Amino acid sequence: MRYHKIPDETIRRLPVYLRGAIHLAQQGVENTSSEHLASLLGVKSWQMRKDFSYFGDFGTPGVGYHLESLIGHINRILRLDAGHRAAVVGAGNLGSALLAFPGFGMYGFEIAAAFDIDKRKIGRTRNGVVIEDVAKLASLSRRKIYMGIIAVPGSAAPEVADALVQAGVKGILNFSPRYIAVPKRVKVITIDIAMDLARLPYYMPAG
Amino acid sequence: MRYHKIPDETIRRLPVYLRGAIHLAQQGVENTSSEHLASLLGVKSWQMRKDFSYFGDFGTPGVGYHLESLIGHINRILRLDAGHRAAVVGAGNLGSALLAFPGFGMYGFEIAAAFDIDKRKIGRTRNGVVIEDVAKLASLSRRKIYMGIIAVPGSAAPEVADALVQAGVKGILNFSPRYIAVPKRVKVITIDIAMDLARLPYYMPAG
Repeated sequence: MRYHKIPDETIRRLPVYLRGAIHLAQQGVENTSSEHLASLLGVKSWQMRKDFSYFGDFGTPGVGYHLESLIGHINRILRLDAGHRAAVVGAGNLGSALLAFPGFGMYGFEIAAAFDIDKRKIGRTRNGVVIEDVAKLASLSRRKIYMGIIAVPGSAAPEVADALVQAGVKGILNFSPRYIAVPKRVKVITIDIAMDLARLPYYMPAG
Repeated sequence: MRYHKIPDETIRRLPVYLRGAIHLAQQGVENTSSEHLASLLGVKSWQMRKDFSYFGDFGTPGVGYHLESLIGHINRILRLDAGHRAAVVGAGNLGSALLAFPGFGMYGFEIAAAFDIDKRKIGRTRNGVVIEDVAKLASLSRRKIYMGIIAVPGSAAPEVADALVQAGVKGILNFSPRYIAVPKRVKVITIDIAMDLARLPYYMPAG
């Protein structure tokens, strides 16, 4: 099931709501109001209700949201319910940090493979994942890995992106500062950490 | 000069526009249309014009945006023009990746200090920055460092956040999955890499 004309900003917020709902469910909460969930997350409750309204209404008047159902709904909308295997390319500091990152499991992700060009790293294990030669990227589709994470220096990023596309990857998370050109069938999300930092001074008290 | 009632989503997009404007200016372009700049960035031109309209209008009819002026405007709005010194706490894989990250300079940031608790790391240099004992965080305000980046495991994050607040930091970029409680005068932006990854399957072709 695909949904159309959903604003990207709504899709950006759904994982935030999902995280809040999982957090409450883990504490044993069964139902919650939009006000409570929104205030927990520091978002506006009308905004959250509007975002949910694109997909029908998840709440019950007087009861609020049944958290288990809400989690299921969001997982299905974001297509996280099937689980996803990802490969990280680049086993330097950033790639190693990603391999050790505990937060992917919550969204059904598994970092199932890691690649590097450095012969000294190939064959080593990081967090249970053996680092493979980047020349073996073509094996991804056979291994049902359709997501790639680019954690190489910017100069190597376009080449890695091409190899990932060749290997049948459908989605790329790009940590390099380079623009990544891919065919339309592949989705790229670029994470620019500096850009997140750039929002901070606006909100800091002056003086 | 502070602006009020500006949507957070607008503030989130300003660094994107800034990056695009800097990119064009570096290529020698002097003026550009909102359509060209927006298409380069993969955003909607009406959205960009609306975002700019909160701050007056930066464009000239028939000429478009003078890039140097536009860059100056956005830098002033985001308060990036003064330059900012940041400290990273945690010199593990993520902290080391941040110290080596080339993208901060574009926004006027300098990672001016790094701290760790590990005696084996203290005293070493990463990208020209000496790693100091985390017990010396109190020196930050004297050194005019008002931004902290938390790159420690989640279990240590609340304690590090407290120490940063005590040290007079006004803004925190939090990479840990933990919720960080700080006084209202301190702004926290949490980066959840898994949450960015969680948007990807929605946009990937099915099958």
